[in-house]
Amino acid sequence: MRQSLLFTKTRKDAPKDEIAKNAQLLIRAGFVHKEIAGVYSFLPLGLRVMNKIVGIIREEMNSIGGQELSLTALQDKKIWETSGRWDDSVVDVWFKTKLKNNSELGLAFTHEEPLTNLVSEYVRSFRDLPVYVYQFQTKFRNETRAKSGIMRTREFLMKDLYSFSKNENEHIIFYEKAKNAYVNIFNKVGLGDKTYITFASGGSFSKYSHEFQTITDAGEDNIFVCKDKNIAINKEVLNEEVLNDLGLKKEDLIEKKSVEVGNIFSLGTKFSDAFELNYSDESGTKKPVIMGSYGIGPARIMGTVAEVLSDEKGLVWPDSIAPFSIHLLLLGDGNAKVECDNIYEKLLKSNIDVLYDDRDMRAGEKFADSDLIGIPMRVVVSEKTLQSKSVEIKYRNSDKVEIMEISEFQKKFLK
Amino acid sequence: MRQSLLFTKTRKDAPKDEIAKNAQLLIRAGFVHKEIAGVYSFLPLGLRVMNKIVGIIREEMNSIGGQELSLTALQDKKIWETSGRWDDSVVDVWFKTKLKNNSELGLAFTHEEPLTNLVSEYVRSFRDLPVYVYQFQTKFRNETRAKSGIMRTREFLMKDLYSFSKNENEHIIFYEKAKNAYVNIFNKVGLGDKTYITFASGGSFSKYSHEFQTITDAGEDNIFVCKDKNIAINKEVLNEEVLNDLGLKKEDLIEKKSVEVGNIFSLGTKFSDAFELNYSDESGTKKPVIMGSYGIGPARIMGTVAEVLSDEKGLVWPDSIAPFSIHLLLLGDGNAKVECDNIYEKLLKSNIDVLYDDRDMRAGEKFADSDLIGIPMRVVVSEKTLQSKSVEIKYRNSDKVEIMEISEFQKKFLK
Repeated sequence: MRQSLLFTKTRKDAPKDEIAKNAQLLIRAGFVHKEIAGVYSFLPLGLRVMNKIVGIIREEMNSIGGQELSLTALQDKKIWETSGRWDDSVVDVWFKTKLKNNSELGLAFTHEEPLTNLVSEYVRSFRDLPVYVYQFQTKFRNETRAKSGIMRTREFLMKDLYSFSKNENEHIIFYEKAKNAYVNIFNKVGLGDKTYITFASGGSFSKYSHEFQTITDAGEDNIFVCKDKNIAINKEVLNEEVLNDLGLKKEDLIEKKSVEVGNIFSLGTKFSDAFELNYSDESGTKKPVIMGSYGIGPARIMGTVAEVLSDEKGLVWPDSIAPFSIHLLLLGDGNAKVECDNIYEKLLKSNIDVLYDDRDMRAGEKFADSDLIGIPMRVVVSEKTLQSKSVEIKYRNSDKVEIMEISEFQKKFLK
Repeated sequence: MRQSLLFTKTRKDAPKDEIAKNAQLLIRAGFVHKEIAGVYSFLPLGLRVMNKIVGIIREEMNSIGGQELSLTALQDKKIWETSGRWDDSVVDVWFKTKLKNNSELGLAFTHEEPLTNLVSEYVRSFRDLPVYVYQFQTKFRNETRAKSGIMRTREFLMKDLYSFSKNENEHIIFYEKAKNAYVNIFNKVGLGDKTYITFASGGSFSKYSHEFQTITDAGEDNIFVCKDKNIAINKEVLNEEVLNDLGLKKEDLIEKKSVEVGNIFSLGTKFSDAFELNYSDESGTKKPVIMGSYGIGPARIMGTVAEVLSDEKGLVWPDSIAPFSIHLLLLGDGNAKVECDNIYEKLLKSNIDVLYDDRDMRAGEKFADSDLIGIPMRVVVSEKTLQSKSVEIKYRNSDKVEIMEISEFQKKFLK
């Protein structure tokens, strides 16, 4: 797209009350807009990143048999009373509202209850299982404080998958598949080498749950990392028993600040018992369904990438989730403009996501904007580069500047 | 996808409290699930339809220069007090909630206010205009009654585009472009010949707004249609002056029940005045921005198609928005199953959306399910069709059954 048409512009400063680095950078670069503390809108550049993250997650969820659906935000009090999670003394992040007849509704902070209720209408027999369903849906959480930018917000898109299995064995096989899919996701979005599968508290149905924790000082969690085994333990559960279970020694672990970018959780029969989600097995015996939940927040991934991969000049996107793959900068006009327009059209025809800075603005400002926005590859066309029939190429994550003949550029990057 | 894996199943009956035909059919066929009156979840089949409708709308919005973003549901009281629309006595569809510090938030029923506020941070000069932004975002409306199925709900996805223009002339040019884009959308989703551009009340900045009204007895509106001119007038504004303006005579008009599937509206400077959204023109003079709003509800389109294109056997989807293009039915097993599996794999490889009914179930039940679900083309493979090396083809919107040799079927439908 032509940058002259993009309605957002970069800014020198973020709002004064914005203390999180990720949000400061994303606001300055025009990716997000702060509406209220902990509530952010996604502007065109930010929405492009979100959609790419969503696409990566969706592909992985489909590959393990997930069926996509979309539940509602407005929640029926009855359903949540069934599981005992309606009361604000049990769940302290509810936003609640009312119909005109004064009956109370909740805004979903998660979806175990409505989904278990829904699935119970379709599952009768062992033939109807297993079922794996997921959604990208907005969650609302009434957080007391919101100071981590888009990494912890009061309204956010979440991918939540829920598994419904016939027995513990079928559950564990899927749980491991989901774990692998999560590893793939964090590798693809560029957080793989900083993200650890972390043993955390499991609740009443399994000893542990598994969190995916990315090392960053901006995180709110503390974990103990074992680099050799590529795993970690959440500080909340660290004790002798856990160390024994995992064959680890305290002295081999390093304490780190981290952010939870995903989690997978065995729910056992907690919700299937509450909603009488049972099935008849091959012998006609009634059995409860075994459930698991698997969560990931696309915006938290975006915020975490903004925290850990940025530098003093701005954002640094991996190509997989960048708003555009190429930032094409025109310096000057006349012949340079003709040639740059030409390259832009060819990139579009090759289906390459390109942001074309065709604005009438000084070179220094264009370079600064480009660094702040953080598109992986910068291509400059100017009278000077054209003297050698070339363009200048620089990758955002490198300081090297390369001069490449246009013919070679076309051969290499155009289809 | 294999229907044996689809977790939803068809049902004989919809919930007793569901009185709208569209929701009855969509629930029975497994497209939506009713959570509360006026609040519906979208199941895998329904979400596929929604996504196709969203895709059609997005393509048209991009083609007229729309930039996609995503605003929030949670709304800041301050912003709405600025325009005078916070008070429940002014807007009677608010859902409101509270932060823990007891400050009130609203759930967006529309987004003029936050978007005007946002755009005012980026627009300074005539060079920054025009701006056309749109989103697919969930709206919440506290409707007193909800009895039209998914055609009028308390929580729904809406595409809303807002235009910001330098002057009335620039506004009108875009307004006409948007009108044409809407015509394209309704043609593409299969409602074109039942949908009329309808003159409706315009508010203080323009004499008329334009609604897109689709003829159906399930609608809540009344319009007067002029078939010759292919336009209509909303009953609410019908008077001598309007007839004169449009050069119509009352006796040439036919009164019809209809549903408003889209609307476009000139907002003038109502919101730009409230939010001081001004720009400096070429001579440095400060001028207010002229706005327009352009709304469409994808779920209402889906509900309207379910109302007007269905028959006594079930849903009838146009190919453009059908959950799948082909419903492949296997009758029998053995050789038929081998051949049907083979055709299924080939359809997948050709990137054709196919639902494969591979379930162990009687032919009559499969045919009834297929009619209820309403996929445009049904392809049956059985021992009988294989005796002539053929498949049986039937289109959902026709009674004709055609026998086609497999070789011809492959030539015609596989890439």
